[in-house]
Amino acid sequence: MTYCVAIKVDDGLVFASDTRTSAGVDDVRTYNKLHIFETTGERVFAIQSAGNLATTQSVINQIKRDMADPMAPVNLNNVRHMYDAAEYVGNLSVRAQQDSAALGQLRNSTVDYRTTLILGGQILGEEPALYLIYPEGNCIAASQDMPYLQVGESKYGKPILDRIIRSYISLADAARCALVSLDSTMKSNLTVGPPLDLAIILKDGLRVEHKQRLDLDTPYYASLKKAWGEQLERIFREALPKFEWENLGASRQNQNQQLF
Amino acid sequence: MTYCVAIKVDDGLVFASDTRTSAGVDDVRTYNKLHIFETTGERVFAIQSAGNLATTQSVINQIKRDMADPMAPVNLNNVRHMYDAAEYVGNLSVRAQQDSAALGQLRNSTVDYRTTLILGGQILGEEPALYLIYPEGNCIAASQDMPYLQVGESKYGKPILDRIIRSYISLADAARCALVSLDSTMKSNLTVGPPLDLAIILKDGLRVEHKQRLDLDTPYYASLKKAWGEQLERIFREALPKFEWENLGASRQNQNQQLF
Repeated sequence: MTYCVAIKVDDGLVFASDTRTSAGVDDVRTYNKLHIFETTGERVFAIQSAGNLATTQSVINQIKRDMADPMAPVNLNNVRHMYDAAEYVGNLSVRAQQDSAALGQLRNSTVDYRTTLILGGQILGEEPALYLIYPEGNCIAASQDMPYLQVGESKYGKPILDRIIRSYISLADAARCALVSLDSTMKSNLTVGPPLDLAIILKDGLRVEHKQRLDLDTPYYASLKKAWGEQLERIFREALPKFEWENLGASRQNQNQQLF
Repeated sequence: MTYCVAIKVDDGLVFASDTRTSAGVDDVRTYNKLHIFETTGERVFAIQSAGNLATTQSVINQIKRDMADPMAPVNLNNVRHMYDAAEYVGNLSVRAQQDSAALGQLRNSTVDYRTTLILGGQILGEEPALYLIYPEGNCIAASQDMPYLQVGESKYGKPILDRIIRSYISLADAARCALVSLDSTMKSNLTVGPPLDLAIILKDGLRVEHKQRLDLDTPYYASLKKAWGEQLERIFREALPKFEWENLGASRQNQNQQLF
């Protein structure tokens, strides 16, 4: 499995992905699931993926081939709108799945060729945008009401996103929340694993402003993990309301101490 | 769906369940999923359930019938060990599923009759124990290494349990963590809903010490939700390490302020 999350806040976009790829528990590898395509000052795209790795790599390679082909009718350099880019990538994904399925049929394979993608970015003159591209090739956009999108093993890391992510929070807070969401998922599910890839696109920056690979021992990630764990423990120790019966228990105990 | 969690700490047992039962999104009801059987001073059991409601109710009713029958070869009043109780309940569950399946076959029904149960409690002279009873009737126990068990929609609420629950924490902290785990799940998944049922069994108390139904407007639950949300926001605002580029950004901004 995989876990990727992308967040759209007023100041820009955040992308965070794990890198664990597994074909069974005895075949675990590290693959980049966060791909960047940028023409600084003109347009920038980030793509994240969950699902069949061969399908994803086929899509990414076709994107690169099309970008290198000045005759390509559609590529990420010539699409006019972010939505066009999402449609184009969706089409590539469906084609890659169909090609693999056709080959697989010859061998009666039952492999699942589907991939779910997140495409985010900005084209000069447009707002930044974020799309979830289904295996069927169609897509939905992130919005103010729903400022984040997830693919893969998404349940473990969803509550913290629901509590923290709002359009008005800073890119840095959104990035921290994405990392915490990934960290929670890794703690609870072995198929999501480090290192993590983080990319940040500032609104109207039209390039990837920050890109970082974080492993468990990367100082920033290690200190974030530690601070988060300690702070959660502190909340439970100090900051949550007591049950009525806790006070009762305490006063009963005091009484006993007075009596005996 | 459903979400129930049970926790075994050194001081006793905590059980928390939601009450939402749905047969489709247009057929949502409230059902108790936390059942108590106690003979104060001798033995106490709590049972939680996720899965087919008819199967669960059949199991609970058979438990009651057996307890009322002085000739019953096995019932919760005469089992000698907690493990025997888990085996007995597992057997009832398999029988209930088989009975329903046999009836359903007459109509070519494809309904899923399975139920997964948690059984916890204590019998005088034994340690408290907690078992997860699979639909197949077999079971696994909670342990010091794995002090909690979940049934139903378990992924959303797992990270906070993994971070906080240890055998040595207090019953009250375990209960707060169970409620937060349920609250997170309810925020992220509509099939898990209030009110919540909470029961606490003190080690060697041999009865349910505290049992409470908490709705969204129950003062304790409302204040817990509020405190938890505020504290999480506070962590993000104040207590997590800054990215290197945040400081850079700040100093660049300061520079700009000096320049212009």
